[in-house]
Amino acid sequence: MRGAVLYGPRDVRVEERPDPTIIEPTDAIIRLPATCVCGSDLWPYRGIEPISAPTPMGHEYVGVVEEVGSAVKNIKPGQFVVGSFFASDNTCPICQAGYQSRCVHAELMGEIGTQAQFARIPLADGTLVATPDIPPDDLIPSLLAASDVLGAGWFGAVAAEAGPGKTVAVVGDGAVGLLAVLAAKQLGAERIIAMSRHEPRQRLAREFGATDIVTERGDEGVARIKDMTDRLGAHSVVEAVGTQESMMQAIRSTRPGGHVGYVGVSHGVELPGEELFFAEVHLLGGPAPVRRFLPNLIDLIWNRKITPGKVFDLELPLEQAAEGYRAMDERRAIKTLLKC
Amino acid sequence: MRGAVLYGPRDVRVEERPDPTIIEPTDAIIRLPATCVCGSDLWPYRGIEPISAPTPMGHEYVGVVEEVGSAVKNIKPGQFVVGSFFASDNTCPICQAGYQSRCVHAELMGEIGTQAQFARIPLADGTLVATPDIPPDDLIPSLLAASDVLGAGWFGAVAAEAGPGKTVAVVGDGAVGLLAVLAAKQLGAERIIAMSRHEPRQRLAREFGATDIVTERGDEGVARIKDMTDRLGAHSVVEAVGTQESMMQAIRSTRPGGHVGYVGVSHGVELPGEELFFAEVHLLGGPAPVRRFLPNLIDLIWNRKITPGKVFDLELPLEQAAEGYRAMDERRAIKTLLKC
Repeated sequence: MRGAVLYGPRDVRVEERPDPTIIEPTDAIIRLPATCVCGSDLWPYRGIEPISAPTPMGHEYVGVVEEVGSAVKNIKPGQFVVGSFFASDNTCPICQAGYQSRCVHAELMGEIGTQAQFARIPLADGTLVATPDIPPDDLIPSLLAASDVLGAGWFGAVAAEAGPGKTVAVVGDGAVGLLAVLAAKQLGAERIIAMSRHEPRQRLAREFGATDIVTERGDEGVARIKDMTDRLGAHSVVEAVGTQESMMQAIRSTRPGGHVGYVGVSHGVELPGEELFFAEVHLLGGPAPVRRFLPNLIDLIWNRKITPGKVFDLELPLEQAAEGYRAMDERRAIKTLLKC
Repeated sequence: MRGAVLYGPRDVRVEERPDPTIIEPTDAIIRLPATCVCGSDLWPYRGIEPISAPTPMGHEYVGVVEEVGSAVKNIKPGQFVVGSFFASDNTCPICQAGYQSRCVHAELMGEIGTQAQFARIPLADGTLVATPDIPPDDLIPSLLAASDVLGAGWFGAVAAEAGPGKTVAVVGDGAVGLLAVLAAKQLGAERIIAMSRHEPRQRLAREFGATDIVTERGDEGVARIKDMTDRLGAHSVVEAVGTQESMMQAIRSTRPGGHVGYVGVSHGVELPGEELFFAEVHLLGGPAPVRRFLPNLIDLIWNRKITPGKVFDLELPLEQAAEGYRAMDERRAIKTLLKC
């Protein structure tokens, strides 16, 4: 099969990779109609997370089940399925509590590499959720978004306890931040403030449900949020960047007793204990347990209540994966879809 | 009136202080039958939080209302009342959400100094909760504990979501940690692990409801908690110390998706963002909104369901406050009660 492989900084090649096969009896093999590039793929692409050998890339996926292992009971060949970037058994106590990304048997799909025509999915019964039928082509981008960025934005909004009567601020206007806006809207938030200084992303934020846009960052951004909330701060803040500045902006924008949901993968962050103590906000974050939300997200997409696929503003054939990475690296694209 | 005043490191004197008077129409004046010394009073006592002038001490209090200001509507002279270390209006949006310690009009009682025969209580209607009647003498230590250490331990247990079916670990065996054990028991926790290496405190922890004692600390303490919880970690962990080691011990002892409630006042703590991200635990802490819990705590004490006053293992007349501080500083006492 064809698949994207990273050879070194800014060197992505699409080449022949071995077709995946069933290794464990709990595996499934899927054929992907499309795959995509994640913001987090840019860390190794840029050489910030170095690699020691050519590395298959990608962890987002949807597709048709081709084959299942002998222990797979619920997932059947021919079904169209969506999974998350962590394979999970969905039965351990951590999964049952809704934290499938920390399943005691969790396997990171990034180590399998789903920017390819086929992929092996471990723990298929726990990991995969089937759609009601084979989806029409126009739903595929949205279902693919559910695999990661929608699930991550949704978790951020849930962790921040976005809901009726709440003012929600979102720090970060990448795909995850924009989809946290969509999630906050779906969860019934009263006011949704997108923090963005990029006009096309502001437009998409508005389309997804943002009621206000704040262009200021850092202390000025915090001051604007306070101005808009009777000096109290937002009830709920989603952090979708992962830097020291964005984390502190999120914490400081939240009212005492409010909730911060942080889903930007933390890079070089140190939280000062004393400030956190007196801030008295709830903090919850980490790799999103997308599996918890998938049945609901698939339902919303299937019934055309939400269109998270709009975050894909560049579509290319898989063979042009290198250009897809380049466009995201140079911020010419929010997110690249690759047709397999 | 007589009151305790700190003159410098380890120099506490009981001397004449001016009788308090109504300053704001929302004030009340109370007469204290007893007051006490808090672990947090030891920071300035030890010179770690330097003072610039002689400083009246104390922030815990119960007493009989002597006089109220013209705007006080609900609190009446003659009532016996309990309040918290933050005066709060109990009407602002932050109070209404249950975070009275961060009330928009919060006033720190430590600046008034309640180790004295009388005290002025700001925002009396919001701050004070009356007991059903004048309490018998033997209930006074427990009501005084409700003013701070019980409320703080209770908040820690609530923030950690202690409850039925949960395994709760408590890091710290001071008065707050011990009362977090009591709170976890009252909240219905299934298993309560007190982390303590002091035999008398272990005994009190057992009396308050601890089912297990762990004497190990740091990484070894974490390993013991994992051993006791199928390698998953506790559902709920209360942190009641405030150091880097105790915070990391609490976070690492908590299972993914679990809850850390931290009530030890943070000193020199820096939380590593990446570890926190992948730990995927809920964090909530800060100065306890004791006012939220006071009606329930008073009810439990009044009906003799709980005896938090057992944390007072030294009782002295107010005039001997200096010895009360010394005994706590030298760890000869958990907590000192001062009879006024």
